[in-house]
Amino acid sequence: MEVEIGLGKSGRRAYGLDDIAIVPSRRTRDPEDIDMSLQLGPFKLELPFLGSAMDGVIDPAMAVAIGRLGGVGVLNLEGVQTRYDDPGPVLDKIASLPKDKATRGIQEVYQQPIREDLIEKRVAEIKAAGVVTAASLTPQRVEQYYRLALDAGLDVLVIQGTVISAEHLSSQREPLDLYKFIADLDVPVVVGGCASYHTALHLMRTGAVGVLIGVGPGHACTTRGVLGIGVPQATALADAAAARARLMEETGRYVNVIADGGIRTGGDIAKCVACGADAVMIGAPIARSLEAPGRGYHWGMATFHPELPRGTRVEVGQAAPLEEIIRGPAHENDGTMNLFGGLRMSMATCGYRTIKEFQRAEVMVAPALQTEGKVIQRSQEVGMGK
Amino acid sequence: MEVEIGLGKSGRRAYGLDDIAIVPSRRTRDPEDIDMSLQLGPFKLELPFLGSAMDGVIDPAMAVAIGRLGGVGVLNLEGVQTRYDDPGPVLDKIASLPKDKATRGIQEVYQQPIREDLIEKRVAEIKAAGVVTAASLTPQRVEQYYRLALDAGLDVLVIQGTVISAEHLSSQREPLDLYKFIADLDVPVVVGGCASYHTALHLMRTGAVGVLIGVGPGHACTTRGVLGIGVPQATALADAAAARARLMEETGRYVNVIADGGIRTGGDIAKCVACGADAVMIGAPIARSLEAPGRGYHWGMATFHPELPRGTRVEVGQAAPLEEIIRGPAHENDGTMNLFGGLRMSMATCGYRTIKEFQRAEVMVAPALQTEGKVIQRSQEVGMGK
Amino acid sequence: MEVEIGLGKSGRRAYGLDDIAIVPSRRTRDPEDIDMSLQLGPFKLELPFLGSAMDGVIDPAMAVAIGRLGGVGVLNLEGVQTRYDDPGPVLDKIASLPKDKATRGIQEVYQQPIREDLIEKRVAEIKAAGVVTAASLTPQRVEQYYRLALDAGLDVLVIQGTVISAEHLSSQREPLDLYKFIADLDVPVVVGGCASYHTALHLMRTGAVGVLIGVGPGHACTTRGVLGIGVPQATALADAAAARARLMEETGRYVNVIADGGIRTGGDIAKCVACGADAVMIGAPIARSLEAPGRGYHWGMATFHPELPRGTRVEVGQAAPLEEIIRGPAHENDGTMNLFGGLRMSMATCGYRTIKEFQRAEVMVAPALQTEGKVIQRSQEVGMGK
Amino acid sequence: MEVEIGLGKSGRRAYGLDDIAIVPSRRTRDPEDIDMSLQLGPFKLELPFLGSAMDGVIDPAMAVAIGRLGGVGVLNLEGVQTRYDDPGPVLDKIASLPKDKATRGIQEVYQQPIREDLIEKRVAEIKAAGVVTAASLTPQRVEQYYRLALDAGLDVLVIQGTVISAEHLSSQREPLDLYKFIADLDVPVVVGGCASYHTALHLMRTGAVGVLIGVGPGHACTTRGVLGIGVPQATALADAAAARARLMEETGRYVNVIADGGIRTGGDIAKCVACGADAVMIGAPIARSLEAPGRGYHWGMATFHPELPRGTRVEVGQAAPLEEIIRGPAHENDGTMNLFGGLRMSMATCGYRTIKEFQRAEVMVAPALQTEGKVIQRSQEVGMGK
Repeated sequence: MEVEIGLGKSGRRAYGLDDIAIVPSRRTRDPEDIDMSLQLGPFKLELPFLGSAMDGVIDPAMAVAIGRLGGVGVLNLEGVQTRYDDPGPVLDKIASLPKDKATRGIQEVYQQPIREDLIEKRVAEIKAAGVVTAASLTPQRVEQYYRLALDAGLDVLVIQGTVISAEHLSSQREPLDLYKFIADLDVPVVVGGCASYHTALHLMRTGAVGVLIGVGPGHACTTRGVLGIGVPQATALADAAAARARLMEETGRYVNVIADGGIRTGGDIAKCVACGADAVMIGAPIARSLEAPGRGYHWGMATFHPELPRGTRVEVGQAAPLEEIIRGPAHENDGTMNLFGGLRMSMATCGYRTIKEFQRAEVMVAPALQTEGKVIQRSQEVGMGK
Repeated sequence: MEVEIGLGKSGRRAYGLDDIAIVPSRRTRDPEDIDMSLQLGPFKLELPFLGSAMDGVIDPAMAVAIGRLGGVGVLNLEGVQTRYDDPGPVLDKIASLPKDKATRGIQEVYQQPIREDLIEKRVAEIKAAGVVTAASLTPQRVEQYYRLALDAGLDVLVIQGTVISAEHLSSQREPLDLYKFIADLDVPVVVGGCASYHTALHLMRTGAVGVLIGVGPGHACTTRGVLGIGVPQATALADAAAARARLMEETGRYVNVIADGGIRTGGDIAKCVACGADAVMIGAPIARSLEAPGRGYHWGMATFHPELPRGTRVEVGQAAPLEEIIRGPAHENDGTMNLFGGLRMSMATCGYRTIKEFQRAEVMVAPALQTEGKVIQRSQEVGMGK
Repeated sequence: MEVEIGLGKSGRRAYGLDDIAIVPSRRTRDPEDIDMSLQLGPFKLELPFLGSAMDGVIDPAMAVAIGRLGGVGVLNLEGVQTRYDDPGPVLDKIASLPKDKATRGIQEVYQQPIREDLIEKRVAEIKAAGVVTAASLTPQRVEQYYRLALDAGLDVLVIQGTVISAEHLSSQREPLDLYKFIADLDVPVVVGGCASYHTALHLMRTGAVGVLIGVGPGHACTTRGVLGIGVPQATALADAAAARARLMEETGRYVNVIADGGIRTGGDIAKCVACGADAVMIGAPIARSLEAPGRGYHWGMATFHPELPRGTRVEVGQAAPLEEIIRGPAHENDGTMNLFGGLRMSMATCGYRTIKEFQRAEVMVAPALQTEGKVIQRSQEVGMGK
Repeated sequence: MEVEIGLGKSGRRAYGLDDIAIVPSRRTRDPEDIDMSLQLGPFKLELPFLGSAMDGVIDPAMAVAIGRLGGVGVLNLEGVQTRYDDPGPVLDKIASLPKDKATRGIQEVYQQPIREDLIEKRVAEIKAAGVVTAASLTPQRVEQYYRLALDAGLDVLVIQGTVISAEHLSSQREPLDLYKFIADLDVPVVVGGCASYHTALHLMRTGAVGVLIGVGPGHACTTRGVLGIGVPQATALADAAAARARLMEETGRYVNVIADGGIRTGGDIAKCVACGADAVMIGAPIARSLEAPGRGYHWGMATFHPELPRGTRVEVGQAAPLEEIIRGPAHENDGTMNLFGGLRMSMATCGYRTIKEFQRAEVMVAPALQTEGKVIQRSQEVGMGK
């Protein structure tokens, strides 16, 4: 599927989630018979999702709430939770910054150093609630801090950067050797993000139980503008699923492909699975919950990069309780509520019982936006299930 | 026409009505010589259309009016007409709900149970007027209620869900066996919606006289967002027409392909036929009539799903009398009035005499929206016919 | 270049003017050396254009003005000029109709019958000025009125409908036989519109000196909505040019391909030529002149169809004197002024000397609107010519 | 990659910067290890960029400032700086023109003749500061004025027009022979713009050290509207890079491919390099600096063409100090600040060390605008570098 961009330069045509749609099969199925569970190392999650390690999405209380709903929330160990004794006023401040001062203001907030005691404290807070306890560190800092987190009871370690590779080159310091590092750990590790067959395969070979897929997956995302880098998510997931199959052949080991970024609706989650994902990592939809620490705002770790900020503080509003967003019942009809009820109904409507089966669903290339705002929406949809 | 979405995952490129245009043939023809009729079981309709079984579109009075204009209106037997003695105040309430409370409000309205006496009464009201009497039930409820409707004089039964298959799987109950059910009935049955060759072929084999084609055909439709599911209509219709040809070879029986959803203009209807449709089911264009029960609003059966509402209440306005919309003369020029005058003129301009001939018209892929709002519209169009 | 729309239904991918761009060749050339002339039967026009036979574009005075600028204006013999002794007040009324009453109002204006004496009078008015005198009739009425026009001095007859074919079928009347009709005439005839290789070839074989190419060429044009019919202009022109080459092989006779509709800028004209056009018929750009009879409004003959109006009254404004629009100098930079200075500069920049040479220019498929309103426009363009 | 536009007319599908995205490789790298330098004849520039020779972008002070930041500013020798003793009030006037009078007003400003003494004076002002001194002339005037500029100390001569070729044809005058002219010069020459393999190859053979690539690269640019001409930038750059490789084979000489136009962000610069560029020429991003002579406005040389103005005066605002735009640190996150920090980070994230290596980066066709304004932006981007 290479196209010629110019003489001697070709590239693959890539597709985002909005470019595709799922096609029903010959069968339909009862929603009650659907199994959406995710096996993450020794842990079986009822719902196939991780909450993004972002300061507006996860604090210890949210990590606990998400665990109780059947997923796992990932705490960012390099954010406000580990830089401030009491993150509340800091989060208030971020939410109250005027739009044109948000980037500078967030840059200032994150100049406060990370404190080791807070790493231990935050992990312990989640652990105490009895849910699967997960947290993230960047490749640059993971060696410095991971031991503290493990000692405090961490169950799953996430090593995460905008783009991560199994082969970082540096003239000035010894880079992290992911193969060796993961082999020596006694907790399951999730690594990412990445967005290609080869990088995913290399990361899978490190021994990780899951790989985060997504580099600028939102087509309009800032990484695309600032760095020119990005891989549309449907293509990235299918490529990663091919790497997973290859690893399976090589080693017999199954590694989870986790779609990270650009997900807004239950339909998006269904499409991720149909492209090969085992699970999704979601940020913005959770940031919209009443319980989210972001107070209706959402931002990422690169927002406060001191020299080259990427990403932005987005006002997402406070739309509904977390439970309505994750498990419903929904009182809105745009797909942003009851995300996993949507996944369940999508699987039932298409006739698939498990996530593995649904990964084989037929998809079509059918751009969603060609007629945006033009079609008088047709709403005659008579429910099959209930 | 498979394109590679990613390694190991391919999909067909699919096309919607807005992606295509009809190409005139070498001949032109007088509009007076055009035959648009539809044979639906024993009934011959002058115009090839069904009114959608939606509460804002069809009540008994509208079913009668549509029948007199040459089509057939399908009454929804699970909506307000069979839940309320006097649906008027309920329809008033739905029309008066503020936008942000519409979904919840409609969810409430539909919690009232369906009454068997009202099923009989509504069917009898239409029958009494002497027009073809048609009504719809979902697969979940058709066995419970169809007998009442038949006894009250029903001529055509429509079995309809968002996505319907001839093979529903359930671990908990015995699903409806469409083959057996339809074989035992003594009225013609129309079933749908579906959107693929195989499902359409299976549904055609059940003995139905028509299959409704359309799953989220409006590109921006809610099913796409909530479930990730959808097949653009031009592709879905061509696939269904191929299934019709296959059934013809297998059995010698002809089954009507009925385009359901996403139709706004006479041009859309012409394109549906050019892609293989024998008829169209239309909702929103009729909801815009002065006589429509929706009072300028339009919504579907899934709008009030208690846990996962899909679809939405759309304000379509009250644009013109039903007759102007269906048969003209039009006093607007955007294609939304005199829908079947538009179909007639399209067939004449392209030189085709019958619906069967027009199904073979040449089409081009020529996206309508690339230049939306940009071209200074050229209006020099000198009529051929009159 | 067929693409599969669905099983058993394929269509060509078609391209509009906005989808393509001209690629400069290895050479550049002085603008002074360019020859843009058009041979239309016995008449040599300095500029390759016809003014559209529309009531807001051409009245006798405009036909004279256009003739003096080097083109030819085509008078509509079935419009206000031949229905009213004094069209002035009628044109004032059309321009003053409120937007929501325009279609109905124009429908009323055109209920006045055509008068034979006015046909003679209007043609004679243009003829008296000594310019090439051209006027249009529809296929339905040409036999009734053409003799009056010829006797009054008509030089070029244009036979024009939305879609015209060389083979019209009717059960009720004897249709016009274009082959015989044109053979018997002693003035050159231009016919159209059409939009395909076969129809263009048939029309060329009738003996016409020019064929009008364009059926709903503006992507968003009303014919597309009302009838579903349309062929994007770049594809239509290339197909017609192929028919011209075929006719040349068959008969040695050269027939002009005239792009009709959807042209806004000098760049559009250049693209029409690069796709194979010998000339263009332009309406809206001329309707924007201070001298245009439309008083800043523009509408077509189908706008007032009594049952199925297509097209619309468009407010185009009164932008500049006709001469500035046609020959410049321009005081605006959007390409809508000095249209043929733009064509000249385009030919010079690309290194071509004549229209025939420029028809072979390289073009690229490069959609114009993908980045509409997004790119900070780059304006560093240093003129080559002057 | 030819597509058929119509029978007998084909064209290549071309791609702009917004159509593509860079794909990370298997490796990542430290930003500190990146080398972005450009060798321009005898001069080594730390940053690979030229400031556009436009009056709102470069005056002598800006040329000096850009030189000190590591690039080179190109002074326009046919603009206000060489027509007016004191350009300040003239630039004030241009900035204060109301929008609807801007084109006419700028046409007037540039009717003042070019003065030879001012050419010498402006070049000398830049030279005195000790930075690389570059200036531009059009092909029409370069023979008349270049000697003055060289004598005043010019280091690099830029010969620039909208479209330039090595073979200009004229019936009335002897055109500039670029081969001979450049061979006789003792300073390095940059020529352009051009946008095809053959023209680029011919211009490279003249002996130039760099070729400017870009003809209407902004998709919506005025040249496209006025002349119908344009080549999307990604395709133009790849083609030019192929010409560079061919010249290398022929002569062993390396000529710089310089992307000119349509660049807004660091990501755009990265994409230019990934398509084959050695450097970029940027105008609008610099015009947005507080120090720019345009006072928040930006316009080009063709804006004031007396008969056929192309391009327009754009209000770009005064966004930040020049240093923040070029080298950061950025306080905005949309990619328009710290342009070369963005290029550095992009190269590091993708694992490439030099510009030559980065030219081989994998790219994908992944249109940026399909989801414009729709995706809830994901901002979780954890920096790799710092």
